[in-house]
This record gives sequence, C-alpha cells and structure tokens, in this order.
Amino acid sequence: MVIMNGPVASIFRRTGAWLLCGMVLLYGSVVSASDAGKKIADQGAAHASAVACASCHGADGGGNDVSGFPRLAGLDAAYLEKQLQSYRDGSNRNPVMASMASSLSADEVRDVAAYYAGLDAVSHARAPANEPTDTGKKLAEEGDFSVRGLPACVQCHGPGGLGVGSIFPPLAGQPFKYIKEQLAAWKSGLRNNDPAGMMKHVAKQLTAREARSVAAYFAAQPVSRGDREGTGKSAAKAAKPAVYSGPLPHLGEVTSGRVAENDYFSPPPRTDFPDGPFGEKVRQGEAIFNHTNTHTVSGKYVGNEQVCSGCHLDAGRLANSAPMWAAWVSYPAYLRKTKTVNTFIERLQGCFKYSMNAQGSKAKHPPAADSDTIMSLVSYAYWLSTDAPTGDSLIAGRGYMKVPETDRGFDPVRGKVVYEEHCAVCHGADGEGLSAQGEVVFPALWGADSYNWGAGMHKVNTAAAYIKWNMPLGVANPVQMSAVLTDQEAWDVAAFVNSHERPQDPRFKRNFATTASRFHSSKYDYYGKLKQPNGKLLGENAPRK
Amino acid sequence: MVIMNGPVASIFRRTGAWLLCGMVLLYGSVVSASDAGKKIADQGAAHASAVACASCHGADGGGNDVSGFPRLAGLDAAYLEKQLQSYRDGSNRNPVMASMASSLSADEVRDVAAYYAGLDAVSHARAPANEPTDTGKKLAEEGDFSVRGLPACVQCHGPGGLGVGSIFPPLAGQPFKYIKEQLAAWKSGLRNNDPAGMMKHVAKQLTAREARSVAAYFAAQPVSRGDREGTGKSAAKAAKPAVYSGPLPHLGEVTSGRVAENDYFSPPPRTDFPDGPFGEKVRQGEAIFNHTNTHTVSGKYVGNEQVCSGCHLDAGRLANSAPMWAAWVSYPAYLRKTKTVNTFIERLQGCFKYSMNAQGSKAKHPPAADSDTIMSLVSYAYWLSTDAPTGDSLIAGRGYMKVPETDRGFDPVRGKVVYEEHCAVCHGADGEGLSAQGEVVFPALWGADSYNWGAGMHKVNTAAAYIKWNMPLGVANPVQMSAVLTDQEAWDVAAFVNSHERPQDPRFKRNFATTASRFHSSKYDYYGKLKQPNGKLLGENAPRK
Repeated sequence: MVIMNGPVASIFRRTGAWLLCGMVLLYGSVVSASDAGKKIADQGAAHASAVACASCHGADGGGNDVSGFPRLAGLDAAYLEKQLQSYRDGSNRNPVMASMASSLSADEVRDVAAYYAGLDAVSHARAPANEPTDTGKKLAEEGDFSVRGLPACVQCHGPGGLGVGSIFPPLAGQPFKYIKEQLAAWKSGLRNNDPAGMMKHVAKQLTAREARSVAAYFAAQPVSRGDREGTGKSAAKAAKPAVYSGPLPHLGEVTSGRVAENDYFSPPPRTDFPDGPFGEKVRQGEAIFNHTNTHTVSGKYVGNEQVCSGCHLDAGRLANSAPMWAAWVSYPAYLRKTKTVNTFIERLQGCFKYSMNAQGSKAKHPPAADSDTIMSLVSYAYWLSTDAPTGDSLIAGRGYMKVPETDRGFDPVRGKVVYEEHCAVCHGADGEGLSAQGEVVFPALWGADSYNWGAGMHKVNTAAAYIKWNMPLGVANPVQMSAVLTDQEAWDVAAFVNSHERPQDPRFKRNFATTASRFHSSKYDYYGKLKQPNGKLLGENAPRK
Repeated sequence: MVIMNGPVASIFRRTGAWLLCGMVLLYGSVVSASDAGKKIADQGAAHASAVACASCHGADGGGNDVSGFPRLAGLDAAYLEKQLQSYRDGSNRNPVMASMASSLSADEVRDVAAYYAGLDAVSHARAPANEPTDTGKKLAEEGDFSVRGLPACVQCHGPGGLGVGSIFPPLAGQPFKYIKEQLAAWKSGLRNNDPAGMMKHVAKQLTAREARSVAAYFAAQPVSRGDREGTGKSAAKAAKPAVYSGPLPHLGEVTSGRVAENDYFSPPPRTDFPDGPFGEKVRQGEAIFNHTNTHTVSGKYVGNEQVCSGCHLDAGRLANSAPMWAAWVSYPAYLRKTKTVNTFIERLQGCFKYSMNAQGSKAKHPPAADSDTIMSLVSYAYWLSTDAPTGDSLIAGRGYMKVPETDRGFDPVRGKVVYEEHCAVCHGADGEGLSAQGEVVFPALWGADSYNWGAGMHKVNTAAAYIKWNMPLGVANPVQMSAVLTDQEAWDVAAFVNSHERPQDPRFKRNFATTASRFHSSKYDYYGKLKQPNGKLLGENAPRK
C-alpha cells in the first residue's frame, strides 16, 4: 500500500482517509484498554480525522480484499504496535498511515493493537482469478534454498503462513493485492522495518510473477487450522510467551561472496518423488526430517524441540550445511566419537540420541534400526543421493565449512552482544526458540528443549561453522558464500550459545568428573569447565530431560 | 611329467623306470589290503619290473622335489585309484606310468591306493629359489574371476590347497616341477581326466609365468593345518563320506559366448583395501562373506552349511552373479517378499533368515542390525561399491541373468539325469555338498545343510538362472556369456534340486496349508505341491533345523 495507483489511489481519494485507527480515548482511564481500542477501531479517535480503522479494515478487522487493506484481526499485538510505530518513524513509508499513526498517543497505539489482537482471526481475502499459484505454493512451502538461497515463507511465518510470535505476521488470508504490494515495498526500500533485512533479501530475489503467485497462494489460505498431528508436547511449547521485546537486528554488512561455481551435487527435485511404497517412505522421510519432534511416527523418540532440518538446511539438501547426500555416500565409516565403524543408520540413531535428546522422549531411546522412523529417513537420504558416487567421503559440500580460528579466540561475554543483536529476535532472549501451530519454527539453542551435551553442535567450533555460513536464515548462505557475521562474531556467539546449560550427556553414567574428562576434554567444549550463576559447573546438574 | 626333457628325461634314462607301483600281491588273500599295498609300494610287484613306488615317490610317499615326482602320502584313495586308471586308459598320457599302472590288477590298484591314502601326509617339496609367488598366491587364493572367469585354485582344491574328497587332490606340498608340468599337460591335452574339463579350462588361461608362480606357491604350502576358527559344526561335516563314485562329467559343448564389452561396474581390487578400523571391517566382511558358517563372528547365525559366496560368486564381485555392488546401490527398496521397504541391512538379515537358515543356528535368529556381522558385511559391500552411482537399481550386472522359459517346461525327472552328469561330482549324489578343512567347498543343495524353503534360491526360476550361467564353476561364466547347460537342462536340473526336502520356511507358524498358499503359490515352487517318497508333501514335515 505504498505505491498509490489504480484502485488504491482512487479509494484514497474517495474516502479521504485510509486506515485511520489513531484517536483519543473517549473514556480515559475509566474504560479498559480493550474498550479503548475498540472505540478507536470502530469510531476513530476524537482528536484526529475521526475515520475509524474499521472503515477500511472491516468491522471485524478482516481487511478489504479488493482494495488490498490487510486483515488485522487476530494478529499479534506487539506486531501491530510495531507497525504503527514504523509508519510514524518512516521505516514503512506510507503517507496515509503515517498520518493516522502519528495522531495516536503511545497508549492509544497499544490499546488499538491489543484490541485487534484479541479478535478472532478472520479474513475477507479471496483467491484472485487467473493467478496461477503452483510457483507460489512451492516458494511458500519449500522456498528455493539450494539454488537461490531463498527460504520458504513458512520457515519464518510459520506453518500455514499463520504467523510466529511478534515478529513474523500471518500471511494467510491477507489480500493478494496487499502481499504483492508489500513485496514490492521491501524490494524498493519503501518498507524497511524487517529484522536483519530478511524481507528485503527475499523480495529482491523474487520476480514480479513469483511475487504475484506467492501473494495469490497466501490470499487463499485459511487463517486458522485444526490441530495438527503431534505428540501433544508442542501445544505447551506454543503457549510459551513468544513476544520479542528487544531491538530489531539490522542487516550487517553481508560479506558478498562469490556464488560457488555450481559444482555441488544436486539431489533430485521434489517433483521427482518416486511412486509406490518406496516413494511413500521417501515422502514420509522428508516429513519426519522437517517435523521430527511432532510427527506421529518419529515424535516419540524426540525428547526436545528439535527437527533434523534445524541443522541440515533445506531439508538436508543444502551443500555445506551437512547435506544428507554427502552423509549417505560416506557411511559406513569409522567415527572417533564411537570409536568404531558406524553405518548410516547408526549415525542417524546418534542424532536421535544426542541432538534429539532421546533419553527425555516418550520412548526413552532412539528408534530401532528397523523402525519406521529410521526406514523413512534412510529411504529419504538414499533417494536424495541418487547418482552420487558411493564411497566419496570427500564429496564437495559435506558437513559445514570451518571458520578459521582468530587471534582473539572465542568469548561468551562478547558473544552475548552478538546474540542479542542478531539471534534473539528468532531464537528468543533466553535461547528458548519459537514454535507456532505446534511446530518448531526457530529451534531452542539451550535449555531443556535444545540438543544435549552429547550433540556435535555443543562444540563451539562446530556451532561457529554452522552459524557463520547459515545464520541469519536466508541471508547467510554456504553455497553463495555470503555471511553476515564476521569470523570473530561467529566464534563468540557460538561460545555464548554453548556456555548455557542443556540436557545431560546420555553417556553420563554416575560420575560427573569422569564424564567430563572422558567425553569433554576438547577446548571447544564448556561441559564441566564453566561455572554457572548457581555455582555449579556446566553439565554438573544437567537434567536428563 | 609328460614332456620328457631335461632332468626328468635323464632320471628316466638313469633308473629305467618311473613311478612303478603295480606288482603282484605276494601274500595273496592271507594279508590285508593295506599290507598288500605297502608291499607293492616298498618292494614293487613281483610280476612286473620290480621297481617299487617308493623308489621315486619316497619311502614315506612324500614325493621327490627335484625330479618333480608327486607326493602320494595322505592323498584320497579313490583319487589315487582313478589316476592309475587314467594312466592305463590314456586319459593321462605318460608312457612310464602307463606301463606301471597296466601291470597292476584292479585289486592291486585299489590296495596301493589305500596304502598311500592311509599314510600321514608328508611332502619333500620346497619353495624354488627365485620364483616369485605373489601372482601365484593371488591366483591360488582369489583367482581372477570377474576379469577372466578364473576361479581360485582353493575353490575346488579346498582351503590351503589341501584337497577335497576324491576328485580334487591336494596341491599343497606338491613339487614345483610337478604342478608346473601338470598345468602344461592340461593345457596341451596330454592330461585329460578332469571333471567337466575344468582344469583344461583353467590351465588354458594361465600364462607360463602364472603357472610357474602358482606352482611355486603351492610347493611351499604345508600339507596339513591346525584347526581353523569355526563353530565346531563343520568338523562333523568334514567327516561326511566325501567319495564320489559316479561317472566323471565330461565337458559339454560350451556355448561360446561373446565376452561382454567390459561395461560392468568394477569394484576396487583387494590390493586397495582401506586402512584403519574401517579397513579392518571391510576385510572381516570379506572373510565372513566367504566363510559365513564357520567364521567366529558370523557362524552362530548360520544354521546350515552355506556361505554368502556360494550364491554371489567371486566374493560378491561378479557381475550377473548377484554382486554386492549392485545390491548396495539398490537399497532401500520395496520388496514384494516382505511387502515393505527394506534397507540393505534388512536384506542381509533376510539372507541369514532364509539362505543361512538362522532358525537352526546357535543364535536362532539373524544378526542384529548393529552386530559385528552385519557391520562387517555392510562395510564390505559399501567398499566394493566405491564410485557406483547411488540409486541405480538398473545398474548393469545386477542379480542373475534370466533363462527363457522353454516349451517343455521343467521336470525333476529329466533334471536328475542332468544332475548326475554334471553336478553330483561336486555337490554329492544326495546334494549333500562337500567340505574340507571344516570349510564349505561345494555347498549342500538340499537337505538339512542347505537353504531353507524361504530362500530365493528354492524357486526353480531363480535357481535355473543361477545355474545356467554360473555352473560348472569356472566354466560357465555370466560375464563371458559362456554356458555348459542348455536352457532346458538348467530348468530341469533346477527343478530336480528344488524338488527335495529342505529346512522349513521360517515364516511357517502353525498351519502347513496356510504357509503353502500364502508364501508358495508360485508355479516355480514345489513347497506343498510335490509328494515325497514318504507320502508327505514337500515342506509338510520339513525340519526347523
């Protein structure tokens, strides 16, 4: 709603006002904030031009499809509040809304935001005629990560595009026209209030046709959905406060990389999923890979809030992000960790044991070699590896790209600053992660819902390598060789993340000191070394769950 | 000892006689056969030229290294008897031995053979100076099957070249000169008393240098060996009568094949075994593959006398002989047999369940997915598959080559004739197989020591395909496209083999009729269909062991 042309401009001229929600509180302190917000919404603020929000956004807050006025009902209050602030401060340049928002006091902004947040989600958006949505659906649900570094919309906006927390608004049920115009605004820089420049980065890569298709797709999506399959654990998780109150990260200088000469192995596209029972296993394997903790088949083996695709981006396809195809052709292999030769299946079981903290799961142990879970993941990894050369353990793109050590080493205190600047917006101020619709959207980085002290990621060097080239999601990219964090920042923030308590190492039997010396002697490992505020060493009283 | 030149000819001229063993029985019927044989051996036969066998073959029957006279002590009696017959009938053309052998009566031949068979194995052969044995060792122990269709010497002559039954004599401890000259005689046709032309076929492929190296290798091998690692079961097996008394198969017309354009995948050579713990697993995997039933790691899961390499020739390397590399890149896959998707590991477990009859083993069940046995076999198969394209389930050389169905179908009665002509010499008149040194040399084809009613090989079509292109060993070859049996013969003999009782199908729970109809409805399957001499249907009372 920035470029005023066609019907939008004509509506503006006709009504003389847009989305006016900012007005005085008629009843002052004797009415509740909600009542105050409703008043502004329905009748407008007395001291302003008296155009109610509802006149454009609908009496029920469901928006206006033809004019492209967004739905407000059921959106996150902090998000709505922030948008009004953006109109005021110019980080979202829209003359009409700027005027409306500027007329509201801080309290009024808060009240009207709270009012719309409290309404039932509703939408009047409709699927536009003659707009094909196949491309949009693919970009929305899968993105185009391995080729263009483009994450799926739902990776941040949550399952079904229903929104996540206070930063990532719902896209489902927003008018086609609205979404299309917002994408144009991110691209042109008229709208500039996104964390870490993520939306700018995404929007710049979309062609106009793709943007239309994405917009058409989301316009037709329902604004709520029934309970999804799951273990039930995630419902509690979803109830966690998911409001981020810190500063928005700005987009640091992106280390402009060369795009690697396209010499990485390419797994087959999803359009080539095989048929028959094997194809079903492959599809189920992908579903488990992306929804490990909630999937009906695999959920019982997961004792935290993690999914495979949290560490293996693009559903295990992305080169230099520990892709499955590189692992598949490299196993069986001798592992220093187990001091024996392990099959690919055993390596998968290791992921469940450590990264998924199986000890705290319903099953209490990783899935058996012949379980449906393993069978599906194996089928999926095998299929992703179609035509990859067996035994090529040096295949380009395996694992993560190491980050060179720096003269300053790594330091959690310095890392805390980096974390708050770049990471907390998605992963939470206390590393707790963010879920939506019962699904993990941004995984927990420490605490009970994170990987345990046996997972590879608890080592600072491994985490630094992952973070440097993969975070923030969709901006850093290990194939395009683009990064936001400096090497030093990657080391420091990895140190900060891994200097927090997390679930116990499942190899712990009785003796803490023995476990520490036997499994945690690495200089990249804080287990048994760093003192927590409670006086205990990290890992000393780590919970099993 | 056919081409008389150099030292051999000079010894002949000096002594005036060679290996004279045929003489009269001085004591007639009052002495035992053994005594009579000893008399001939030590003193010669009175009615002949009175040259004792011992004068050339040594007082202890240990042979003469310089002259190239073979050791006789400890060789199989039937074998020795047959050799004397061959000198008489000209199928081994040697003028001196022909004269000696012709002077003996049938009883005398039997007696002297029995005498030498009863002596402790001994040899005076020595490793020749300046004869490299690396090539010989490789040909002796590994052969060159995948490239030239050349089986290892020990595949027929038994572990250590110590001989197997009455057909395959020991090579260990035979003089360098003797072995070298015999190979030349097979090649030239002067010696022509081998079953199915096997030795001719082998000898023709060896260069003179290779023949020398093989001869040098075996000359230096010990004539007996201590107990080998094993489960103990095989000791009993080795005690089975292993004398074949039927006619020797002749070499039928070999369907001269084109050698396939070398377009099959080539697994890495054994000289490239990897180092370290993974390499150890690979080596152990190969050892298990070749000695499955006796290996200390895998033996407890094998309830019969079978080895992986019995059905997967050249240790799982040979194209069109169900090679491991083709299987590796084809799993996981949906199997009609299990009605689900199976991993390679599960497929291996299936081999143990059925082909190895695990129900009758010490463990009573197949090895677990994380067992050392599976781990080793997986490592071996994976390594054999180095550089093979993942997922290429259509890779050339997978499985066996089918045999077209014939108008006459298949018939066990006709098959019996084929079996006796071509197969019984190695696999035994009653399909019992042949072991030596506690190791399976020729696997049992039916009965308690064979694959059970669930194994793929129990189907007539599968067995026909295997037999046609792989049997007789080293003559038929599925890469060179050479065969001895006609399609009709292959079908019929497969029907004969699979119309015998064998261990019960492990899927049998309670009801025979249900098992028969559920798992054995194929027209290639005799389970539950053919009446045995005891009046029961095949499978009806099949034992679990």
